[in-house]
Amino acid sequence: MENKNEAMEKITSLAKRRGFIFPGSEIYGGLAGTYDYGPLGVRLKENIERLWLTMFRDDRSDMYGVDATILMNSKLWEASGHVSGFSDPLVECQKCHHRFRADQLEDEKKCPDCGGGFGEVKQFNMMFKTHAGSVEDDSSAVYLRPETAGGIFSNFKNVMDSMHPKIPFGIAQIGKAFRNEIAPRDFIFRLREFSQMEVEYFVKPSEWESAFEEWRLLMHRFAERIGISKNSLHELEVADSDRAHYSNRTIDFEFDYPSGRGELWGLAYRGDFDLSAHQEASGTTLTYLDEETKEKFIPHVIEPSLGVDRTLLAVLLSAYREDSLGDGRVYLAFPPSIAPIKAVVSPLLKNKPELVAKAREVFQALKTVVPQIAWDDNGNIGKRYRRQDEVGTPWCITIDFDTLGETKELLDTVTLRSRDSGEQERLSISDAIQKVYTSINHGA
Amino acid sequence: MENKNEAMEKITSLAKRRGFIFPGSEIYGGLAGTYDYGPLGVRLKENIERLWLTMFRDDRSDMYGVDATILMNSKLWEASGHVSGFSDPLVECQKCHHRFRADQLEDEKKCPDCGGGFGEVKQFNMMFKTHAGSVEDDSSAVYLRPETAGGIFSNFKNVMDSMHPKIPFGIAQIGKAFRNEIAPRDFIFRLREFSQMEVEYFVKPSEWESAFEEWRLLMHRFAERIGISKNSLHELEVADSDRAHYSNRTIDFEFDYPSGRGELWGLAYRGDFDLSAHQEASGTTLTYLDEETKEKFIPHVIEPSLGVDRTLLAVLLSAYREDSLGDGRVYLAFPPSIAPIKAVVSPLLKNKPELVAKAREVFQALKTVVPQIAWDDNGNIGKRYRRQDEVGTPWCITIDFDTLGETKELLDTVTLRSRDSGEQERLSISDAIQKVYTSINHGA
Repeated sequence: MENKNEAMEKITSLAKRRGFIFPGSEIYGGLAGTYDYGPLGVRLKENIERLWLTMFRDDRSDMYGVDATILMNSKLWEASGHVSGFSDPLVECQKCHHRFRADQLEDEKKCPDCGGGFGEVKQFNMMFKTHAGSVEDDSSAVYLRPETAGGIFSNFKNVMDSMHPKIPFGIAQIGKAFRNEIAPRDFIFRLREFSQMEVEYFVKPSEWESAFEEWRLLMHRFAERIGISKNSLHELEVADSDRAHYSNRTIDFEFDYPSGRGELWGLAYRGDFDLSAHQEASGTTLTYLDEETKEKFIPHVIEPSLGVDRTLLAVLLSAYREDSLGDGRVYLAFPPSIAPIKAVVSPLLKNKPELVAKAREVFQALKTVVPQIAWDDNGNIGKRYRRQDEVGTPWCITIDFDTLGETKELLDTVTLRSRDSGEQERLSISDAIQKVYTSINHGA
Repeated sequence: MENKNEAMEKITSLAKRRGFIFPGSEIYGGLAGTYDYGPLGVRLKENIERLWLTMFRDDRSDMYGVDATILMNSKLWEASGHVSGFSDPLVECQKCHHRFRADQLEDEKKCPDCGGGFGEVKQFNMMFKTHAGSVEDDSSAVYLRPETAGGIFSNFKNVMDSMHPKIPFGIAQIGKAFRNEIAPRDFIFRLREFSQMEVEYFVKPSEWESAFEEWRLLMHRFAERIGISKNSLHELEVADSDRAHYSNRTIDFEFDYPSGRGELWGLAYRGDFDLSAHQEASGTTLTYLDEETKEKFIPHVIEPSLGVDRTLLAVLLSAYREDSLGDGRVYLAFPPSIAPIKAVVSPLLKNKPELVAKAREVFQALKTVVPQIAWDDNGNIGKRYRRQDEVGTPWCITIDFDTLGETKELLDTVTLRSRDSGEQERLSISDAIQKVYTSINHGA
């Protein structure tokens, strides 16, 4: 993928053509900064999210889930600083009236579209604003949450009171967030509507460093499991001068996108900034009582924050391969555990009822143990392989006349073809099913 | 549950106290019509949604998923009729200025709050409106989707072009929707922010009746699987005069809430109304080509539509039980497959390291096959049982000195206690694990 734009265009085009990702509201001319997930994209997204839930929440005994609303009382966003400070610098061309982010212009004086001059730089708040209730005034203003974290902090007390967790413990959430970006761009990299997978992990102030390290390592393990290679993932230690004043350490996880290295995930030690701010603004006590020492304190927070869509983009880019197999092919080398289709089952010919019946039988037997499979009886076998390669299906099982016993010793055997090597092997039906199952449940 | 308000209050209180559902933005004084899911509520919701995905999408070979954005081009909501017609009648008291839904007032002339008189009835559009991009004017207005269906119809062509489905086929989606209700009420029954599980199923016009029947039956099977009893679920055939003009048949599935029979789900035959409207408004051809007959037509639509939150409310109400076991208890009789915690593992005493170590071993062995389990070593066994009953945990496993071999023939046996009967039996560790596993994977 030498040409930068070409690589992104190939992924965007494949994603649309094969049912992963469609431009939002496309038949109505689209809506900037929105993309919809299609049938295969939904499965890929669900697989990534479920793996995250397993690794970041369910496999641990110290984690709790919440699912808070997108619309929240606006006092929360005043307390967090978003109402006053969550903004980008905006300039407008005085000639063509196009608007730009001032910090992303190559020439700060001249409009890139018409060469006109700019007016003053204004701060543009990136929160989407609406009104709840039947009166539209300041008192009814609510915002679409710009990050999911707010819904975690606002439920800290409720989780404490209902679940009685012992510190250190954390709260995990997956959900939508919205930012009215001046310039949404790069496919699903910078969206106006996106999903986040966030953890707020609450610790004693003295224990933040070990917790930070633990989550840092877990993020690397997650990257490996979803097929993001070590070589393309980089930790950027955010310098003192660039960090928020309350944070003693922040790491940006960066990924090698076709256009260059850019943000993927974040890991921040946020001290007691959030809970203190919400305690003060809400008048609700947000302390933790240590039963051993009888000490009350506001826990400190470690925040591993992952954007779902950006993660999915990195997964697609990491999986994209071209090689010379056959007449040349494109394939997506997804780890089997997150592939949207784990295996496809095909009768060699679709107009032979006995082949179709046997293939249906194999399909049903496999589906019982591996639910995410598909049926494909269209075109010749070579075309089916190309089609499955392109959507990242790790295994193709073909039922032929030997399966039916045409060659006696091959009765009840099938062809199992591997996506990555393109190689085929002859296995009994039960061995083929076992092999597919094992690759999904014990793969990287 | 004789007193109607009392029953709803008991569920609301239990849901908050035990970590199922919290009032939204609570520490900031709340936000009307919003509720957040807590740790156990998230699991219950995920279990219901995953079962729906399995039954309505993944177990079928004719279903495709999408996940469209909440913010869509507003032309779509013009085409669907929501911009002009999705409104409730609103009246304002001329004395105290409180506002009400005109169709829900007992006395149409006098304010129930202060006795003042009302002004004229106005139509109040229930869509939340915001602006995308940096200019706030009519051209940038976008709405938060009032139903998820729009994101299915707008992707009909993309799904057709990428997946090449054969009719009949359907598209399924779970996602958030928003309605600016004048009077949100009854806990999570009528919310301003809620989730929907929707299917649009596309058929030949002549085949709508059999498809309608198929989905009707599936909705009943789903109700049974999530513990909504046949007795509390009622089909209401919507009369000709109450049906939308394009619908030849609509069924409201109603549930016996404490306050009386009310809406739960809907099943509608919508003809070609939606696709025709979107074809005309978008200028995009939305026909299906029948390869056999070479006929092109706009498919007709069957729409099974389920609200997630309302479903969860019906599940909680259906599961709620009080009986006289012990000193009297409350328990939630969730079907094991959707219970947020399938089993809890406890050492008899938490200050005996050998009991704790053995219990941890059992916990790990069980967690490998049944991920949704919990650890509880707090208080005496009787209290633990009550606590688990109240959150609907079907099984409690206790490790005692006999497990360690104090009574030789009981070595490596545990106590397995059933939520519903309160009975305990002594089983080998492996039999206990098998029994828990079987109840979850083959239960009703």
